[in-house]
Amino acid sequence: MLKAGLIGGTGYTGVELLRILAAHPEVSVELITSRGQAGKRVEDHFPSLRGHYGLQFQSPENVKFDRCDIVFAATPSGVAMNYAPGLLAHGIKFIDLSADFRIKDIELWEKWYGMGHSCPELLAKAVYGLPEMNRESVRTASLIANPGCYPTATTLGLLPLLKSGVIAHDPIIVDAKSGVTGAGRVVSTGNLYSEVADSFKAYGVAGHRHQPEIRQSLCQISGTDDMGLTFVPHLTPMLRGIHSTIYVQLTDSSADLQTLFESQYGDEPFVDVMPVGSHPDTRSVRASNMCRIAVHKLAESNAAVILAVEDNLVKGAAGQAVQNMNLMFGLPETLGLTSVPVLP
Amino acid sequence: MLKAGLIGGTGYTGVELLRILAAHPEVSVELITSRGQAGKRVEDHFPSLRGHYGLQFQSPENVKFDRCDIVFAATPSGVAMNYAPGLLAHGIKFIDLSADFRIKDIELWEKWYGMGHSCPELLAKAVYGLPEMNRESVRTASLIANPGCYPTATTLGLLPLLKSGVIAHDPIIVDAKSGVTGAGRVVSTGNLYSEVADSFKAYGVAGHRHQPEIRQSLCQISGTDDMGLTFVPHLTPMLRGIHSTIYVQLTDSSADLQTLFESQYGDEPFVDVMPVGSHPDTRSVRASNMCRIAVHKLAESNAAVILAVEDNLVKGAAGQAVQNMNLMFGLPETLGLTSVPVLP
Amino acid sequence: MLKAGLIGGTGYTGVELLRILAAHPEVSVELITSRGQAGKRVEDHFPSLRGHYGLQFQSPENVKFDRCDIVFAATPSGVAMNYAPGLLAHGIKFIDLSADFRIKDIELWEKWYGMGHSCPELLAKAVYGLPEMNRESVRTASLIANPGCYPTATTLGLLPLLKSGVIAHDPIIVDAKSGVTGAGRVVSTGNLYSEVADSFKAYGVAGHRHQPEIRQSLCQISGTDDMGLTFVPHLTPMLRGIHSTIYVQLTDSSADLQTLFESQYGDEPFVDVMPVGSHPDTRSVRASNMCRIAVHKLAESNAAVILAVEDNLVKGAAGQAVQNMNLMFGLPETLGLTSVPVLP
Amino acid sequence: MLKAGLIGGTGYTGVELLRILAAHPEVSVELITSRGQAGKRVEDHFPSLRGHYGLQFQSPENVKFDRCDIVFAATPSGVAMNYAPGLLAHGIKFIDLSADFRIKDIELWEKWYGMGHSCPELLAKAVYGLPEMNRESVRTASLIANPGCYPTATTLGLLPLLKSGVIAHDPIIVDAKSGVTGAGRVVSTGNLYSEVADSFKAYGVAGHRHQPEIRQSLCQISGTDDMGLTFVPHLTPMLRGIHSTIYVQLTDSSADLQTLFESQYGDEPFVDVMPVGSHPDTRSVRASNMCRIAVHKLAESNAAVILAVEDNLVKGAAGQAVQNMNLMFGLPETLGLTSVPVLP
Repeated sequence: MLKAGLIGGTGYTGVELLRILAAHPEVSVELITSRGQAGKRVEDHFPSLRGHYGLQFQSPENVKFDRCDIVFAATPSGVAMNYAPGLLAHGIKFIDLSADFRIKDIELWEKWYGMGHSCPELLAKAVYGLPEMNRESVRTASLIANPGCYPTATTLGLLPLLKSGVIAHDPIIVDAKSGVTGAGRVVSTGNLYSEVADSFKAYGVAGHRHQPEIRQSLCQISGTDDMGLTFVPHLTPMLRGIHSTIYVQLTDSSADLQTLFESQYGDEPFVDVMPVGSHPDTRSVRASNMCRIAVHKLAESNAAVILAVEDNLVKGAAGQAVQNMNLMFGLPETLGLTSVPVLP
Repeated sequence: MLKAGLIGGTGYTGVELLRILAAHPEVSVELITSRGQAGKRVEDHFPSLRGHYGLQFQSPENVKFDRCDIVFAATPSGVAMNYAPGLLAHGIKFIDLSADFRIKDIELWEKWYGMGHSCPELLAKAVYGLPEMNRESVRTASLIANPGCYPTATTLGLLPLLKSGVIAHDPIIVDAKSGVTGAGRVVSTGNLYSEVADSFKAYGVAGHRHQPEIRQSLCQISGTDDMGLTFVPHLTPMLRGIHSTIYVQLTDSSADLQTLFESQYGDEPFVDVMPVGSHPDTRSVRASNMCRIAVHKLAESNAAVILAVEDNLVKGAAGQAVQNMNLMFGLPETLGLTSVPVLP
Repeated sequence: MLKAGLIGGTGYTGVELLRILAAHPEVSVELITSRGQAGKRVEDHFPSLRGHYGLQFQSPENVKFDRCDIVFAATPSGVAMNYAPGLLAHGIKFIDLSADFRIKDIELWEKWYGMGHSCPELLAKAVYGLPEMNRESVRTASLIANPGCYPTATTLGLLPLLKSGVIAHDPIIVDAKSGVTGAGRVVSTGNLYSEVADSFKAYGVAGHRHQPEIRQSLCQISGTDDMGLTFVPHLTPMLRGIHSTIYVQLTDSSADLQTLFESQYGDEPFVDVMPVGSHPDTRSVRASNMCRIAVHKLAESNAAVILAVEDNLVKGAAGQAVQNMNLMFGLPETLGLTSVPVLP
Repeated sequence: MLKAGLIGGTGYTGVELLRILAAHPEVSVELITSRGQAGKRVEDHFPSLRGHYGLQFQSPENVKFDRCDIVFAATPSGVAMNYAPGLLAHGIKFIDLSADFRIKDIELWEKWYGMGHSCPELLAKAVYGLPEMNRESVRTASLIANPGCYPTATTLGLLPLLKSGVIAHDPIIVDAKSGVTGAGRVVSTGNLYSEVADSFKAYGVAGHRHQPEIRQSLCQISGTDDMGLTFVPHLTPMLRGIHSTIYVQLTDSSADLQTLFESQYGDEPFVDVMPVGSHPDTRSVRASNMCRIAVHKLAESNAAVILAVEDNLVKGAAGQAVQNMNLMFGLPETLGLTSVPVLP
């Protein structure tokens, strides 16, 4: 039984990780930190967890992680990097669900995240935890940069096309839509029910932190730095779900895209290639670790459209973190992650 | 491994039952019937089930239930009663999630359901499957009338008070609110998104089928036929969830209501008595078999208010059916039903 | 053309008042104050108002209200009372949409609002601005306490019954439901989309500020202090709308309730008595100043149920304020308030 | 006072047209037809209209349109074309809110709408009623093809760019999102609340009827038939609103896009060009005839993104129809259409 610690467990990623770990047969959560809720019972903070956790939140200052085999961070940017060196030095594996270790180019990271990085020397060591792209590296990693929600669905939607070289690298257009939990449990006007319900909008057209993260993966997959990626995120009045609509231009118009995707993902437990002509809806993956993808080759043009959906809190965050943990500890990759999506 | 059959699996109760049974370690679903979808793969009808079921819907005419140990009916009123005699004659246990066997008074049933009953002789045999009220009878039953969604939350909210005799029997006022899945997958104008979203209304004030069902249980619990029950249901713009707000007048103003509830439900796995002063929200039980209850004794009056929430598709339907099945077959009552609520 | 000022126009009541006044043919909004948004253009704060207002928010310190005929306050509790003496001294009429002048009993007010009142001497002068109850007093008032959202729908639902003396005063049970804008534009965890969407809950069962306000009106109408009122508010995942479900016991079982309501409200422009058997939905009054009411006498009991719906931001706040203004200045009561509800 | 008739007034476009016309100072609605609701009072069908219409629905067979100056059709495809010849022959102006006269190429129309056209000779006579594109033709038209909801926002978003020739014609990618009322009041499983709430999906990727309609306008504006348009619509869990996100490649990278848009639309009453860097949300135009547009030139690329929002039932349907009517009868273009958007 693995002993797990959780740094920062009061947000939506935190409660989702606790939900998943409660059902995981090989993990026991031993400690949870929170500066703001220290001393409060986890069950009082999240009534949905009543009966599942006897723990209290602890102030991070007083915590000894020594008894943990694995620590997860579900914190705002700039927090996890302060814990990483110490944890690794003690031989504790660390999965960071925030963005601190996602971007290899330190200058790029510092530009987008607006702060200095406290341990740039660990960036090279960190493995980008998208198993469908980096599975073997994840198995041996001690530090995982768990991917962002938009990057997960988007990268999975483009991987077979870039790998096989059948699309142009410019333009690649990603029109992505997210449920409101994607913004976290941040108490701001923009996240109020009365601001976002029954409405729809784009945001961050001029630039969004997930664009360089996606771009980095696309470049890695295609082995080139030439990538004309436009990424526009939108806020949708729903709780969970990412829908990434991806527009590409084919360079090889005879390519059998459906077969390409099925070959790439045939053995993947958490990527479901839908039948030709499908339109996956986000609810079909609600509360599950599945990413469903449909690929449409358009008639009378060289364009193709890829539709990829995931639950941003599961495959886009906590579920993928547990998938990574399973790989790191030699457990079956799907352990604790096989629950059926909740529909409706 | 129990072999299960499902009559009518194309609605929301059906897909929820399939979701729960997919994760149940002691059940294998062997057949599913549907007149309208016969020949279609279950996974094509419900993409959320892709990878979990290889079955096709079968036309009910051609189905042999002999190999089933247990059959569930998730059908409109008036269908299950046609299957019950045959199934029971073959020694197959039967759980009816519809209302065909819920009301013992045949005239009352026929009045509310607007049809004749095809097997009134089975009504006495049918056990009302609310385990917290009738657990021992459920264990030995061969035919279960699975309770309605409103009746489950409401009866659980009143049981300790009626049993201990601390409230007046008139008036008992139940102001109940349901998510839209409570109306089933019925294709009608009233169930359209554009009719019910961002709006709220009462319905059935003059009379609702769940009123006599609730009244029957309250009378059974209190051992009297004197019960002044007003029940008003409301439609809420959300997918899942029942919130029953119950108003009673205390006859014993010194009664310690919190202790009453905690004593009654202390050992119940699926009833959670919240701390004094709580306001449970429906999301705290989403996709789980839990019913959470808070009891409020009002200051400066003899009134009390009970708040009871459940997921109408789980504790109010499919989850309770599986709980009953577990009891009927001597399995642990909570088997396959311990998943953590999905929040947010 | 009346010149109007608005104290605190950055919340939902503020923007709704600005929306209504923009279409009012006899009012010109001359100034709007806001501490937090001083210097910002109103149109930049509320893009929905683009093209309708050229004003900027002004810091309240620098504002001269002298040129105003009428001032509205759409502020948190405890702010409006600081402006009232000065405005009245200058002969400026004042409509307070907050709660500062709603409760006549100063001790009761101070207990519920948790602060001292700065001008209790004005309480007697303030007229409770529910025109259907106090129309003649409103006409001559200089200071209006604009009613709360729950009290408006609830009082209108009970007025004909109490006035005619056909119901018992105890118990009167009000189970009320509100959309999320009822909580204002307060930036708190509890108002986040991801906290309240797709969920339902009660709140304030132990006590809510609108209970004494409702009780005061019911006592005034019935001319007694004996009133056993239970009030439980609930939060509903929708933007606008109040639905008040009211349970009463008839003392005169032969009373013709429908006729009672139609007689009381036959000439009222903003109260619509629905046909017998109706279930008004909140969307049927969305963005309008109408309150729709249906009354149900229950069969086989002495109970009756009243359903009353309104838009909490219009008849429950800004619209009613304009209705009061029209009366105070001798304008047609419905001026600027006749827009058709927005459905769906 | 114009006398208006409405063919098919029981859907969402119908009720919206009735809402707008109720407030129009120069129009009186004289008759409304409906096969299904004949004999029913309009107010009973739409309680939101209570007090505004005394009419009953009439069966279309019995209706004489002679006394009408203008007739609107808010019917499914294939109905309006049967009325057009007769109405025009009687000198009655006709605005078709359905798609019967939108596409000039009869073969293309018949392919997409799956039926023969009953009066192809009228297609040349029909004016495509997008005033910002065809204002002068609208003024003198007797038959208006009122544009579709997606085409309105999309064409307005592209018009300045195509007219000035600063973008490539291929690829032009339109990723459009609609609220559920865009699907009409069609009683189908796909439109149920429990199917579309809290979920998001694309549809019609292989082809959607609005694609050829948009393409036709883009070709007309640019004077070419070379137009590589990809159009993907999505269904969003909200009532009203279209958000069109448009991706184009600039051929002239020095073009000042903001000035282009402001010049084109500076005098337009119903197109609002937002400040540089804006992200309009659909609620900012709710229940109004406004289309708000923001244009973003992306850094380090030749790409631009245009965001255009409208209320699909107003500028995308009923409001635009009234705007066209105003033009056809020499009334002020904005008459009856100046109401402020309802936010939140």
